Amino acid sequence: MDKKYAIGMDFGTLSARAVLIDLSTGEEALSSVYGYQDAVIDEILPNSNVKLPSDYALQNPVDYRDATIGLLKDICVNSHVPPEDIISIGLDFTACTVVAVDEEMCPLCMQSAFARNPHSWVKLWKHHGAQREADLINQTARDRGENFIRHYGNTSSSEWMFAKILETYFKAPEVYRATYKFMEAGDWIVWLLTGAVTTSTCMAGFKAFWNEEDGYPSKEFFAAISPELADVTDKLVQDVYTVGSRAGGLTETMARATGLKAGTSVSVSMIDAHAAVPVVGATGGNSFMMTMGTSICHILLSKKEILMDGICGVVKDGVIPGYYGYEAGQAAVGDIYDWFITHFASDECYDSASQKNVSPFTVMDERAAALKAGESGLLALDWWNGNRSMLNNANLTGLIMGMTLNTRQEDVYRALIEATAFGTRNIVECMQKQGISVEHIYACGGLSRKSRLVMQIFADVLGRDITVTSIEQTTAYGAAMYGMVAAGKERGGFDTFSEASRGLFSGAEKIFRPDMDNHRIYSQLFQYYQRLTDIFGRDCKDVMPALKRIRDEVEAESD
Amino acid sequence: MDKKYAIGMDFGTLSARAVLIDLSTGEEALSSVYGYQDAVIDEILPNSNVKLPSDYALQNPVDYRDATIGLLKDICVNSHVPPEDIISIGLDFTACTVVAVDEEMCPLCMQSAFARNPHSWVKLWKHHGAQREADLINQTARDRGENFIRHYGNTSSSEWMFAKILETYFKAPEVYRATYKFMEAGDWIVWLLTGAVTTSTCMAGFKAFWNEEDGYPSKEFFAAISPELADVTDKLVQDVYTVGSRAGGLTETMARATGLKAGTSVSVSMIDAHAAVPVVGATGGNSFMMTMGTSICHILLSKKEILMDGICGVVKDGVIPGYYGYEAGQAAVGDIYDWFITHFASDECYDSASQKNVSPFTVMDERAAALKAGESGLLALDWWNGNRSMLNNANLTGLIMGMTLNTRQEDVYRALIEATAFGTRNIVECMQKQGISVEHIYACGGLSRKSRLVMQIFADVLGRDITVTSIEQTTAYGAAMYGMVAAGKERGGFDTFSEASRGLFSGAEKIFRPDMDNHRIYSQLFQYYQRLTDIFGRDCKDVMPALKRIRDEVEAESD
Repeated sequence: MDKKYAIGMDFGTLSARAVLIDLSTGEEALSSVYGYQDAVIDEILPNSNVKLPSDYALQNPVDYRDATIGLLKDICVNSHVPPEDIISIGLDFTACTVVAVDEEMCPLCMQSAFARNPHSWVKLWKHHGAQREADLINQTARDRGENFIRHYGNTSSSEWMFAKILETYFKAPEVYRATYKFMEAGDWIVWLLTGAVTTSTCMAGFKAFWNEEDGYPSKEFFAAISPELADVTDKLVQDVYTVGSRAGGLTETMARATGLKAGTSVSVSMIDAHAAVPVVGATGGNSFMMTMGTSICHILLSKKEILMDGICGVVKDGVIPGYYGYEAGQAAVGDIYDWFITHFASDECYDSASQKNVSPFTVMDERAAALKAGESGLLALDWWNGNRSMLNNANLTGLIMGMTLNTRQEDVYRALIEATAFGTRNIVECMQKQGISVEHIYACGGLSRKSRLVMQIFADVLGRDITVTSIEQTTAYGAAMYGMVAAGKERGGFDTFSEASRGLFSGAEKIFRPDMDNHRIYSQLFQYYQRLTDIFGRDCKDVMPALKRIRDEVEAESD
Repeated sequence: MDKKYAIGMDFGTLSARAVLIDLSTGEEALSSVYGYQDAVIDEILPNSNVKLPSDYALQNPVDYRDATIGLLKDICVNSHVPPEDIISIGLDFTACTVVAVDEEMCPLCMQSAFARNPHSWVKLWKHHGAQREADLINQTARDRGENFIRHYGNTSSSEWMFAKILETYFKAPEVYRATYKFMEAGDWIVWLLTGAVTTSTCMAGFKAFWNEEDGYPSKEFFAAISPELADVTDKLVQDVYTVGSRAGGLTETMARATGLKAGTSVSVSMIDAHAAVPVVGATGGNSFMMTMGTSICHILLSKKEILMDGICGVVKDGVIPGYYGYEAGQAAVGDIYDWFITHFASDECYDSASQKNVSPFTVMDERAAALKAGESGLLALDWWNGNRSMLNNANLTGLIMGMTLNTRQEDVYRALIEATAFGTRNIVECMQKQGISVEHIYACGGLSRKSRLVMQIFADVLGRDITVTSIEQTTAYGAAMYGMVAAGKERGGFDTFSEASRGLFSGAEKIFRPDMDNHRIYSQLFQYYQRLTDIFGRDCKDVMPALKRIRDEVEAESD
């Protein structure tokens, strides 16, 4: 029997990548990267002189199409694998990244009538023009006691689907009216590949207020915002499939364009962070997965549904079929370490790094690793970019205390790492207190591979084993797994994620085990972290925002 | 008529200096420095192999005698001023620095029977072996409702006279019993010069619980600690003179040794920080003087006596005759800026400094000066070395909050300066709230000359003019002024400090005037500084000490 292969595609912010996975070994046979030409459009619209406001972040769907065809062709040509042995394509995409298309599924920005209107372009996940619309949605939902908002910790983000659509409605009604579907860019790529207009429980559930029982929010809800919006959900994709479902087969057109076989199975799209979950084997209940990078995205799987405050969302079948997927987050993690190294590490640290041919992080890690838990005498709140979970307050800021005249660089650096670990522990404990147990902890993402110290401190603070995947292109690999499950056993794939996990991985992951002496010390410190959280996040939650307000007033006056 | 001159002597921790002041111009005619040979004895006793505990800090009185004679001789020889035109000697000394002498006024450490006992040596102001004794004094005083302790914010320091004496009593009773007088080193020098055994309201009032009404604490108080201690105050100097009084005239022996004229007027001794007060003209009521260096010592003069918590002490005639002198303090000020520059300033800052041939402080000052008040978004508590006034808690630590990913070095540096200014404003407001008004603010000390930015921020935060003296050897100059007043008009000096001030200064001081726009912004921030003070200094005052306790436990375990 011939070996079988599956393709995973990961569409990021600046580039897309594809991997070809050998199903017999679980190994990556080939990978390819494609950098977007227009990348992030945040100053001037392409081919025009239309300037953009400072909080806008747009993209060009032509980049996505070119990346899709380019990458698949590249994999097909360079792998020398017969097309019939490639059983599936799975893909993930940044979200919520919104394409507005007409009835021909053609993006409006590609049409001369709309090309000079920013709202016809793709609104990238980090487009921040819709805060007022998000506030309006949150207020209206709370006033009306809407059930859907309870799935999102009672607060939705300006980055999500309806905030972005409402922004278009209010600022560019002509674009709104001309739009047939507002769709996730990932879903548009799935359409491009298969001709099927679909979305997934992951995309619709985490970003568009959809749930299995109620579907999208009601006409009455949107009509309360504006009568014309009553029918807004008609403009959304109606066919919502469970993650790991088959959206369709590759079209003849795309087969010709790429060299792949027509009919090759394509799965419904996944959100990028969520696609990584099955890659370490986090496919069962009470698994807790951390995607660790500049920030941390936490995904917890559970058989139970509890609508709690402070989480980003809970979606049935949102990540792995059969489980409620909970998403939580820390808005800055690696970003805080970067901030410290960039602004406060001495040149002596940089020099030592360049002599040893390592990064300054490695040097600082070594110095901080020589300290014992609790030895710095410091305690920090990791709110440099606000607190996402469990306080959901972007106006909170960083804090560090315990300094004496003997406090050194490495003390501060280690305290910052500890603070981010306390932040994760706080999320875990909040979830557990509300009845959702956390049993197995997994990590992926650049940070989980870059710093042993960070991972050991997380294990020590949590008092748990942390399993870290050794797979580098975690997200693209995860996307491929969704494709394999969508293809199913009959097409050479797998019927479930557990089977896929057992079939692919050989136990190559690394496990960080907690030092329980350190854990006991950290548990003492964590009590004080919680005290500080209560003080500045609850009892005196006006203090940090007041400093920001004063700063903003000073800056406004001097403009 | 010949020009008249006065000598001021300042005995510091590592050296002593003398200045010769021309009374006709107020200018310094000559100065001389003498470095102590044994300096601070904190490892091994001289001429022995006796090792010292880590918190001991002793000195050798031979250094003081050699410095006294050496400096006076130097001034006499090099100034070419006829000895009869030098009308007075005034001196200040670190305090509480305790010499134990026998009936011949000979220090016990100079006698072979005691030379190997650390307690026979001079206990320097920063000798920290007597914390248990200080605790015992404080507890006993509070239990008995002693009035004297109310003059010291209800807490006395381990650095003061009776704590040091009790330490000798408990640890070296043979030294205690052999001691005729425990005296301030400054008073021992006055005896050396004049043969008179005296002390001043300043020395006895601020360091030995003496006040005009009650004298030293009662026999009953000390007997409650130990029956043998009932007579301890007999071992103290009994003749307490108001500051600026004449202790006596130079002896024939000292006249021969130095070249000065026998009978030259010598004033009673002053504490070093307090001696600087008259130098900027802070000689009247409601004057507030900051001696700014590694820490700040605040002295306030008032006609009113209010026994308040949080001050170091209040002494009638303790600084300027006719006024109650209040002492308060911030335990770390310049030390915090130093800490930041040493540990966190980039080499780029150091490089830029060496290129411009200035200190890295100057470079950082320039960058921080470019920021507007409130622009950093940061707020700090200046407790890097605990909080002296008004909380009197050495276990508090530093805090900084408001950090975002955009926070830079100069933001933090400026926030640290602002925090120290808020610390001073807190002291001023606490005093005012309790009924003591602060009208004129003066500053001296290295920091007041080194950084315009620091002084401007203090003026802006306080919303007051700050007058900074242009006299460099402020303390020695101040000591000379006490000598001039002790000599009095009839001997060519002055009868009061106001007259001395008018007679000597030509208005060469610099005045920093507040920017009232900045003041309004700082007043907003100061409210939050007070909130943080309430949180971590009162409501949640266990948090910072807990971090220290955990650190100490970790360190103890690893020893």
